[in-house]
Amino acid sequence: MRWLVVIASLLLPAPLRAESRGTGDLGIVVERADGAVQIVETSSMTTLARVDGLGDLSHAAAVFSRDGRYAFVFGRDGGLSKIDLLDQRVADRIVQAGNSIGGAISSDGRLVAVANYEPGGVKVFDTATLGLVVDIRSTEIGEGKRAKVVGLEDTGGDRFAFSLYDTGDIWTVDLADPAVPVIQRFFDVGDQPYDALVMPDGHYYLAGLFGEDGIVLLDLWDPKARPRRILDGYGRGEEPLPVYKMPHLEGWAAAGDQVVLPAVGRYEVLIVDRRSWEETARIAVHGQPVFAVARPDGRQVWVNFAHPDNGVVQVIDLVTREIVETLEPGAAVLHMEFTPRGEQVWVSARDSNEVVVYDTETFEVLARLPARSPSGIFFTARANRIGY
Amino acid sequence: MRWLVVIASLLLPAPLRAESRGTGDLGIVVERADGAVQIVETSSMTTLARVDGLGDLSHAAAVFSRDGRYAFVFGRDGGLSKIDLLDQRVADRIVQAGNSIGGAISSDGRLVAVANYEPGGVKVFDTATLGLVVDIRSTEIGEGKRAKVVGLEDTGGDRFAFSLYDTGDIWTVDLADPAVPVIQRFFDVGDQPYDALVMPDGHYYLAGLFGEDGIVLLDLWDPKARPRRILDGYGRGEEPLPVYKMPHLEGWAAAGDQVVLPAVGRYEVLIVDRRSWEETARIAVHGQPVFAVARPDGRQVWVNFAHPDNGVVQVIDLVTREIVETLEPGAAVLHMEFTPRGEQVWVSARDSNEVVVYDTETFEVLARLPARSPSGIFFTARANRIGY
Repeated sequence: MRWLVVIASLLLPAPLRAESRGTGDLGIVVERADGAVQIVETSSMTTLARVDGLGDLSHAAAVFSRDGRYAFVFGRDGGLSKIDLLDQRVADRIVQAGNSIGGAISSDGRLVAVANYEPGGVKVFDTATLGLVVDIRSTEIGEGKRAKVVGLEDTGGDRFAFSLYDTGDIWTVDLADPAVPVIQRFFDVGDQPYDALVMPDGHYYLAGLFGEDGIVLLDLWDPKARPRRILDGYGRGEEPLPVYKMPHLEGWAAAGDQVVLPAVGRYEVLIVDRRSWEETARIAVHGQPVFAVARPDGRQVWVNFAHPDNGVVQVIDLVTREIVETLEPGAAVLHMEFTPRGEQVWVSARDSNEVVVYDTETFEVLARLPARSPSGIFFTARANRIGY
Repeated sequence: MRWLVVIASLLLPAPLRAESRGTGDLGIVVERADGAVQIVETSSMTTLARVDGLGDLSHAAAVFSRDGRYAFVFGRDGGLSKIDLLDQRVADRIVQAGNSIGGAISSDGRLVAVANYEPGGVKVFDTATLGLVVDIRSTEIGEGKRAKVVGLEDTGGDRFAFSLYDTGDIWTVDLADPAVPVIQRFFDVGDQPYDALVMPDGHYYLAGLFGEDGIVLLDLWDPKARPRRILDGYGRGEEPLPVYKMPHLEGWAAAGDQVVLPAVGRYEVLIVDRRSWEETARIAVHGQPVFAVARPDGRQVWVNFAHPDNGVVQVIDLVTREIVETLEPGAAVLHMEFTPRGEQVWVSARDSNEVVVYDTETFEVLARLPARSPSGIFFTARANRIGY
């Protein structure tokens, strides 16, 4: 019988020869120009496979199933693709809207929610089947259009929070019973919320404003709380500077008692006290910051920049608040992702067609992986966190 | 050819039919009386397999490879077992000392360190081969014996910290180059350190003292720092109460600005300010606390108790600082482990031969899993954290 086993294992076609490996060190790199993702692993720092046919992946983002096997990739064209990281293929794919901007996954891993511009709203799908579970329509704004949804975040349990760009709302939804969504709407909280984040503990939802200065904060743990304004000086100010790119709020780095955020337009990173939400310091940096991401231990913050300074990454030591390193990973650095314990950071250099992996203690380059116009990098450890 | 594939897949013996699944939702439950572990998964809340032959598992602990595939189980008898969670078998096993008490794994996943009582010291092994890499001998204390090592923790990168019970030392070791271990020794920092923990950011190492009241704190981010004393009132006090079981320091719950810790002997849980290290409040609880574990979002703390109150678990809401639930999972509750985003907690009830899974929002029992004298429960998400 053994000969049969040996022969068969040689004959087994690739899709049936299931990959058996842990998924804790896996991730994806978005190749935006090609509508593809690379599947990568961080233990040996290699590319395992390339999966294509994912549509328009400009500004694409991803979340992961709680077992780490599947990535759900949100494309700009409304595509929602479920990638099997072990079988290295598209397990399922739907086009669920005309234009969308990211999503989130529930703690139990059963619901994946997508933020849509067109038609405006949030659609929630069953992660097993990609069947539609809940369709939350945003407010109508005339001419048959509905408000664009931005800043969609999971906030613990089966709850999500998101913002409406056109009407300036923040909505929360609890899908503990998906048949009876419990939606809370806070109207007109600020002018043109354009992005948002949730603190790592799921306590606060913060929305950045494009139409005015300031940040809107909602305490998600207090059922009676209303959105309130903090950081009135955060924004372009009275004499606006040319802003090449609005900074990403995902980049807000919660590090111990402080929150670190990219200034808008200015060559600065701001430090805000996490208890009082008051600005406590500013650190001068190389250019207009886009992401300011904390190493998971909160000891360092890595910053990338808008054009024309987007070939540089700076590292701030948060204990001394000094820039300890200025790196040049390549042309057009778009994203940075830390391994969960922070010993490595992966940096995408779009126009160098390369992902560069750094040791975060020595700043040594550990690996360079060829990639076609790489943008977002997402590791499976995100499945373990709230607000990712 | 297809018939051959089909027949072969039926004929393939179990060990060759590799399990292909994500590892992000896996974990182990220690069955202490049998020298076995159950492999469990938290998505459907089931037991997948049982692996035995692991020796004396009283007070056993485990860490995980960074890909989530392997558990390294530290037995009381000096056994170090590498369990393949996918193939559901012992991949490798050594008996590396006569008596040991837990261990830790480096961020890059290459080194697993074990704290030994007999002979006293720390042995560090290659996770791929279980070959000895470094043997750190603790201080000789006469009669051919060396000090017992306790409180061994990874502290980021390739660094570890541990304490010497008999001589009252804290040592740190940096194994960036394993051929040249860089060891720093702080002598006589307190009487009989018996357990320790590292804050989730790897910033502070805290050792509890058996021989006197107080806690020793070492700032791991400041190379010039010396261990200093905090919480002088923490301990049994001047008129010692009978202490059935010293509380576990692992149970210290870092939640936002506060740290929650079980009192020693008293029916109380203490709240300590994380900036000043001063005690700010006490919460009365049902019995002598053993573990006080924060849900990952820091909003709740779950507490179990020493005999004779060990059939009860209480839940403290950290916002209101009130006990919101008193549960009776079963007889002799030994351990509690949260899923990484905190929607479930798994509780081992040794004398009920059961693991009980709760929904942490509704306190509903989601599942009961039969287990033989279950003690420690460990999920693969620990691989993503510092100090676990």
